[in-house]
Amino acid sequence: MKIGFIGLGRMGLAMSNRLVDAGFDLVVYNRTREKAAELEKKGAKVAGSIAEACKGRDLVITMLADDKALAEVVDGGLLSTLAKGAIHMPMGTHSVTALTALKEQHDAAGHAFVAAPVLGRPDAAAAGQIGIVPGGNRDAIAKLEPVFKTLGRRAFDAGENPAGAAAVKLANNMVLGCAVEAMAEAFALTRKFGVPPQVFNEVLTDGLFACPAYKVYGGIIANESYDKVGFAVKLGFKDSNLIMAAGQAASVPLPSANVFRDTLIEALAHGEGDLDWSVMARVRARASGLE
Amino acid sequence: MKIGFIGLGRMGLAMSNRLVDAGFDLVVYNRTREKAAELEKKGAKVAGSIAEACKGRDLVITMLADDKALAEVVDGGLLSTLAKGAIHMPMGTHSVTALTALKEQHDAAGHAFVAAPVLGRPDAAAAGQIGIVPGGNRDAIAKLEPVFKTLGRRAFDAGENPAGAAAVKLANNMVLGCAVEAMAEAFALTRKFGVPPQVFNEVLTDGLFACPAYKVYGGIIANESYDKVGFAVKLGFKDSNLIMAAGQAASVPLPSANVFRDTLIEALAHGEGDLDWSVMARVRARASGLE
Amino acid sequence: MKIGFIGLGRMGLAMSNRLVDAGFDLVVYNRTREKAAELEKKGAKVAGSIAEACKGRDLVITMLADDKALAEVVDGGLLSTLAKGAIHMPMGTHSVTALTALKEQHDAAGHAFVAAPVLGRPDAAAAGQIGIVPGGNRDAIAKLEPVFKTLGRRAFDAGENPAGAAAVKLANNMVLGCAVEAMAEAFALTRKFGVPPQVFNEVLTDGLFACPAYKVYGGIIANESYDKVGFAVKLGFKDSNLIMAAGQAASVPLPSANVFRDTLIEALAHGEGDLDWSVMARVRARASGLE
Amino acid sequence: MKIGFIGLGRMGLAMSNRLVDAGFDLVVYNRTREKAAELEKKGAKVAGSIAEACKGRDLVITMLADDKALAEVVDGGLLSTLAKGAIHMPMGTHSVTALTALKEQHDAAGHAFVAAPVLGRPDAAAAGQIGIVPGGNRDAIAKLEPVFKTLGRRAFDAGENPAGAAAVKLANNMVLGCAVEAMAEAFALTRKFGVPPQVFNEVLTDGLFACPAYKVYGGIIANESYDKVGFAVKLGFKDSNLIMAAGQAASVPLPSANVFRDTLIEALAHGEGDLDWSVMARVRARASGLE
Repeated sequence: MKIGFIGLGRMGLAMSNRLVDAGFDLVVYNRTREKAAELEKKGAKVAGSIAEACKGRDLVITMLADDKALAEVVDGGLLSTLAKGAIHMPMGTHSVTALTALKEQHDAAGHAFVAAPVLGRPDAAAAGQIGIVPGGNRDAIAKLEPVFKTLGRRAFDAGENPAGAAAVKLANNMVLGCAVEAMAEAFALTRKFGVPPQVFNEVLTDGLFACPAYKVYGGIIANESYDKVGFAVKLGFKDSNLIMAAGQAASVPLPSANVFRDTLIEALAHGEGDLDWSVMARVRARASGLE
Repeated sequence: MKIGFIGLGRMGLAMSNRLVDAGFDLVVYNRTREKAAELEKKGAKVAGSIAEACKGRDLVITMLADDKALAEVVDGGLLSTLAKGAIHMPMGTHSVTALTALKEQHDAAGHAFVAAPVLGRPDAAAAGQIGIVPGGNRDAIAKLEPVFKTLGRRAFDAGENPAGAAAVKLANNMVLGCAVEAMAEAFALTRKFGVPPQVFNEVLTDGLFACPAYKVYGGIIANESYDKVGFAVKLGFKDSNLIMAAGQAASVPLPSANVFRDTLIEALAHGEGDLDWSVMARVRARASGLE
Repeated sequence: MKIGFIGLGRMGLAMSNRLVDAGFDLVVYNRTREKAAELEKKGAKVAGSIAEACKGRDLVITMLADDKALAEVVDGGLLSTLAKGAIHMPMGTHSVTALTALKEQHDAAGHAFVAAPVLGRPDAAAAGQIGIVPGGNRDAIAKLEPVFKTLGRRAFDAGENPAGAAAVKLANNMVLGCAVEAMAEAFALTRKFGVPPQVFNEVLTDGLFACPAYKVYGGIIANESYDKVGFAVKLGFKDSNLIMAAGQAASVPLPSANVFRDTLIEALAHGEGDLDWSVMARVRARASGLE
Repeated sequence: MKIGFIGLGRMGLAMSNRLVDAGFDLVVYNRTREKAAELEKKGAKVAGSIAEACKGRDLVITMLADDKALAEVVDGGLLSTLAKGAIHMPMGTHSVTALTALKEQHDAAGHAFVAAPVLGRPDAAAAGQIGIVPGGNRDAIAKLEPVFKTLGRRAFDAGENPAGAAAVKLANNMVLGCAVEAMAEAFALTRKFGVPPQVFNEVLTDGLFACPAYKVYGGIIANESYDKVGFAVKLGFKDSNLIMAAGQAASVPLPSANVFRDTLIEALAHGEGDLDWSVMARVRARASGLE
């Protein structure tokens, strides 16, 4: 399978390295070409344009920061160059509406379209330990199994709707945002009764919530180490807007998501946009008269 | 240590059995005496009145359903019979205001007071695997270590405020309620995009949320098996009111808790009070036009 | 019609004065007797006990601060002294559950029961310009028309359920709380774009919202004159709890009421409990990084 | 003052008619030219293109449905044709971000820019009874006084920020949406206690809320006449998104706005998008188990 790979950010680099290491015929493209140096040494071709990265490829993977970057790549050569029957698979986090519109464009052009957002961070991507959530063209998803095996630990088939794959990724992030908000409120409540944050953190993560979501963010909150940024307020807020847009597109009220989104806005209003998003706990503490 | 134990519901029975098995000198009391039969065979004395269960005891544990039941026991003989310097330790889930008021009464009477709500269900209590959250009199908590070791897996010291112990328990339940609400919204969202609930459940519980809270309730939601009741809507709602009352007592806004409480009210309005509280997912599905 | 009147606070005084001025045969009772001096001069009898204020009366009106005060009067002589067929009409703001329970007690005792909360402040009560919302026994309500005419500008018949009358009063207050919260958010939003608060206030109250609710509280917010207290945060919060309790009793989710209640809690957490409840606008401004 | 007027929808027609009636030198443009027939008879010139409607004009008013339509007009000739020093005044409801971006474009081009959204419906516009909220270039606003006098009853100066004018309009609509939501909850609550909706409506609109917002929508709710559409759910939802976007742009959490927006989403999910937005009351009734 001949693969084009567009977008060599931290995630894209980790993923394209795994593909070239596994022996796939790979052409890569990035706006700033230097990022491709190591891949080139390993045998990947480096394209000088989007079109060159798409021409004659069976599959083009895009790993881009947002809808805007994706649209620029699609309109900047991908859509017009990709061969009939070839597959485009965006693996970044995109809005359901962008993916739905893109599906129509690819359908009209005779391309197969699969959205496949990923779960995990760059280190997990480098280790092939990310989760992948493909949604879209059934035949394409079947053919892509070797790619999924190379890139990730597990693929979760979201069905035939590419927007469904995005919804899974966004819903997962939403559940995380709600968990952080709930912790933020819970720490404020227990602090007001004199409970040491470390104690509450231990209670929380000892039983029902003995999992990374709570351990990671509960720990940051208990230590108030919001400057060790796992996921910044600004990024969380960006995601919250994609979540809102998904709820809007599907007519699903998301009252819990509204709550944590408002707490993020409150953090932004206080100049905390570059801190870890668990700084929601400081927002809730302030609201409770604690800070 | 001579112990009185009042309240032989499912939790109380499991806990008092552990105490008598461990060789503690135990007097038990329950409104319906039959529940004490097995304990009596094992060597526990069965008191005919609350006063009898408190007289000459170093420690009286109460394990009662709610504030009302606790007040009846306190006013019905406990407060007037307990010796100076003896300890009263309620281990049920009570309101912060009830515990604060009770602390004052015990202080005035020269008793030591420790609130020690527990985390876990009757089977965990029978196996000595519950978590215990003591809060209150420091000397008493130190003396109670052998009791905590007998009853539970681990004790988390909430500090000197008995209401703080209740706050920990309630905050933990609040975080759980918020998690179920978040899942409820997330399942509705992904369903609307055609994602099979089982797939979303696997995504959710595979990584960030690989812990009992999500596995148990995610599983029920994915299967819509709300009649397998782990924790009924009615009980969850009762807890949500205790949570609200704690927030009120400490002036802590709890917007996430409001959200899941409203979803529980909506379940109650639809006659779903006896189903598992993860039926919140059905409420959210209805709100999204799915049912 | 022989009337007993219990509770001579500011509202009670204004109302009982109208009754005696209109020539009703009136016996009044208040815990602190001095409040009754002026009424006595006008010809009202002053009772030395609750029982004395109820004995032989066709109607006993209670105008008390809360459920607790009402229960003390009911249990302290009213229920046992009131004649069969006589009417008890509480006109304070009470919880739906207290009124429902009280109705059962009066039914059992053969009394007629009408809850009749009022809309308006002491000056309106003195001028006979309050609104009255009677709910309960149909025959009694019919008989009470002359009383309503004397006390208020208009009576709104809430139906045969006394709790319904309370629900009307509480729902009206809820709509007001929501209006103040909405203004609080709206002023914060427009301020952030450099709009002078006075200008926004004029826009708001010029057209769609040209009514007292917006004029009074919009004016206070625009001037930040929260120390001119029309309705204190503490009282608003007390009402918000009665509203919550009504929603709970009837299984009605009230998400908007939760929002303004949380804003009041945030005000309480910042020591603003004695300010006018439109200080919600300051809470919202703080959350927006404005103060 | 030579005026160009672009956009002859119901509002635009009413407004341009007033301008030509008042003797202004008017060139109008609309995509479908027929709408301009009556204006032409009265002496207005009808332009064949956007550019023609802008050329040599001192002021160009645009009255367009949304940001997209505005951008098409701006890019389709307005920006490139308008003379230096001339004024562009959009009077539709636009997002704060679109207006902020447009201000920059006009600044760069040497144009004066004033956003001036209006309050009121087509019949009020025809009668010159709308409110106008200008924000932007101070000199331009001063010069525009005769235009404001012709078009409306009153102008409210929002300051020098065009986005501020939009914020005022959106905040006003937000307060209205919150009022409808509050009524929706209040009617559900009182209905559950057996109170006839007409009675609650009378209580509500008799005193504190004796203003159009409550009278109009309270009446529709009491009669459940949601098919008499004053303002459709779909339009309300569109506005709610502009409100959210304004809150986002200025970092202002808007929890009340979230609540009514979710209720609108729930209406959309139930196929009620074309009904009057006070159908929120039916959503709330459903949530309460009433329908």
